[in-house]
Amino acid sequence: MEFLTSLTPEQALKVINTFPLPSPDAEQVPLDQAPGRVLAADIIAREDIPPFPRSLVDGYAVKAKDTYGAREGSPAFLLLKGAVAVGEVTEAQVGDGEAVGVATGAMLPAGADGVVMEEHTRRAADGVEVTHTVRQKEHICFRGEDLEAGQVALEKGKVLSPFDIGVLAALGVVAVPVYRQVLVGIVSSGNEIVAADKAPPPGKVRDINTHTVSGLLRNRGCLVRFAGIARDRVKDLAEKLTVLKGCDMLLLSGGSSKGQSDFMTSAVELLGGKTLFHGLNIKPGKPTVFASLWDKPVFGLPGHPVSCAMVVLRFVLPLAARLRGEKGEVFPRTQAGTLSTNVPSTYGIEEYVRVTVARQGNRTSVTPLFAKSSVISTLSRADGYIIVRAGKEGLEAGEEVEVYPLG
Amino acid sequence: MEFLTSLTPEQALKVINTFPLPSPDAEQVPLDQAPGRVLAADIIAREDIPPFPRSLVDGYAVKAKDTYGAREGSPAFLLLKGAVAVGEVTEAQVGDGEAVGVATGAMLPAGADGVVMEEHTRRAADGVEVTHTVRQKEHICFRGEDLEAGQVALEKGKVLSPFDIGVLAALGVVAVPVYRQVLVGIVSSGNEIVAADKAPPPGKVRDINTHTVSGLLRNRGCLVRFAGIARDRVKDLAEKLTVLKGCDMLLLSGGSSKGQSDFMTSAVELLGGKTLFHGLNIKPGKPTVFASLWDKPVFGLPGHPVSCAMVVLRFVLPLAARLRGEKGEVFPRTQAGTLSTNVPSTYGIEEYVRVTVARQGNRTSVTPLFAKSSVISTLSRADGYIIVRAGKEGLEAGEEVEVYPLG
Repeated sequence: MEFLTSLTPEQALKVINTFPLPSPDAEQVPLDQAPGRVLAADIIAREDIPPFPRSLVDGYAVKAKDTYGAREGSPAFLLLKGAVAVGEVTEAQVGDGEAVGVATGAMLPAGADGVVMEEHTRRAADGVEVTHTVRQKEHICFRGEDLEAGQVALEKGKVLSPFDIGVLAALGVVAVPVYRQVLVGIVSSGNEIVAADKAPPPGKVRDINTHTVSGLLRNRGCLVRFAGIARDRVKDLAEKLTVLKGCDMLLLSGGSSKGQSDFMTSAVELLGGKTLFHGLNIKPGKPTVFASLWDKPVFGLPGHPVSCAMVVLRFVLPLAARLRGEKGEVFPRTQAGTLSTNVPSTYGIEEYVRVTVARQGNRTSVTPLFAKSSVISTLSRADGYIIVRAGKEGLEAGEEVEVYPLG
Repeated sequence: MEFLTSLTPEQALKVINTFPLPSPDAEQVPLDQAPGRVLAADIIAREDIPPFPRSLVDGYAVKAKDTYGAREGSPAFLLLKGAVAVGEVTEAQVGDGEAVGVATGAMLPAGADGVVMEEHTRRAADGVEVTHTVRQKEHICFRGEDLEAGQVALEKGKVLSPFDIGVLAALGVVAVPVYRQVLVGIVSSGNEIVAADKAPPPGKVRDINTHTVSGLLRNRGCLVRFAGIARDRVKDLAEKLTVLKGCDMLLLSGGSSKGQSDFMTSAVELLGGKTLFHGLNIKPGKPTVFASLWDKPVFGLPGHPVSCAMVVLRFVLPLAARLRGEKGEVFPRTQAGTLSTNVPSTYGIEEYVRVTVARQGNRTSVTPLFAKSSVISTLSRADGYIIVRAGKEGLEAGEEVEVYPLG
């Protein structure tokens, strides 16, 4: 009757989020292997970016005051004193009444405080007629305007985006300090489970969870080690767990019998581990186990594919993020939308409902996919899920809901 | 004056979306390498999933009619005729007034049309007292309820999610037909550009775009080949392009001079290619080139890092998706939100504005990041971008906007 002591999701997340973890080790990877990895140190800009003031357009570097009042019919005439090509160092000086040609990206010559676009000029003998007023600082990217020397350009714990890689490239950081990739060990278990490449004899089914769970974890930058399919025997489970001793987190997945979560806790305890909770007040996902073994976190995942996936999304991925050294939001961004139909639910249990999402003009319509928790095909068709909190007895058509992403 | 003939984004997408592409080649990959790949054939279920009716709970298989009216105070007594363990084949039959024990996931014995949960029963001598009415079909997952033999389980052109992998595993499809990965060739160009691992001499800057563009493409499942940094010379560009002749798409990226887009078109035409458009009525991103060379699509990307990234997001990634054989939406899902401040823009030009997004209760607040198109650090901080259409003269605080993701 472990379900009498089921934890609420909030209580469970408290246990999971305070599970003591070691500081992840750091390593260095080349720039182009860094996207998706987690930064292991603050990146301090060692130089100004750009390192010199640059023109943002093709045109002429000028003193802005020399162009005040310039119009098509009454242009300002400036004496042309050469030009700066892109990539070139210039010693040119822009004096009063003078202009120097500049290409986009070229170094701004000294004395200039604005650039006039080529389109707003006419060439004249020895000079250039400016037909528009140039504002001070116009069309210039100043030294250090992107990044200033000494500034924290990127913070430790950030998951590196392609644009962060651009920042690192700008700064010349080509060996990037990142945390070592987290290794997650998976054991599938259940007397009815056969490997996906086998034809299941009558009464048995193929292993689904190992594959969905591995995919979800790999999408979040984890490595996965699979120890095989265990029979529903404490000894077999314990042997498979021992194979995964070197992993950062262990997942037991696969079988669907309620008794099986007892095998899991027994196997963990046989090896000297400790059950931290057993049973969650959620639907689907009730028979979830969380334990500590060799100071590593261990999840016993429910066997129904949808239950298993929901527990991974809500409880395993946040812990994977913490193992990876990620800072910031635990849960990913949600999307707001309006329910298209009523959603029944049981008072006192937090329920997760698969949904499809459709944009209709400015409205986002959210439609539940009602199906049993054993039905993997609905997850393949779903766009996300919504949460019906324990204090609710269902949701009504027209209600505003938050849609959580499925990964 | 190529800008007089600038295309609107809609015109440009029409050219891009009708660029003739070969059918992508297919190959087979193991299940666990398939996430993120594009399915090259419809997957037809060759069997029913589940292959036999299964109990969804631990309890007793019954004839539902035998439990009608059963209550705590007046239970229905059923004769217990054995039990079915998970993974087992059963020959048991449930007759009138009989029950057979079933574990979660176990095969349902013949004759039963409902399962009562263990919690709603009491064990009695030779039998079981049922304290709740069982509805017909309750707690059963029927044969083929997940997937039916002959049904299209997954459609050609789908980008495979971890859940799709679960569907494939359930069906025993362990060699997955997917399209070959698209290979994108990149040349960086510009006299001012040095490699990211170099210290730029005065007047020069490090290559940013190669790295952001590679990251964006790899995140979408493309492979990237880099031919190095070309000088602003037609011959040099043409040589680098020739190195990439075997690629499925070519990108010229890096320099920022307006003249440079002319180098690009000249190099493409020198090699026998044809410019399809030159100049887009967008900001940032105006000096974009699109061409055909060796029947392959070629983009000339603007040099400013933000301009370059926006053109990749809006115009290159949709073409990459088409090259990959993806079916369905060209642009990714957007998020709705409310502008926190006014956004000025130029009438007649489609503008892309980087934004940050904050959720405040049920409201999503969208705040523009005003910065020059040369400033990569704002893309690293941004959560998305909004579009100010050409027909608008800015947007006002409080307006509803759609936020596009940055990848």
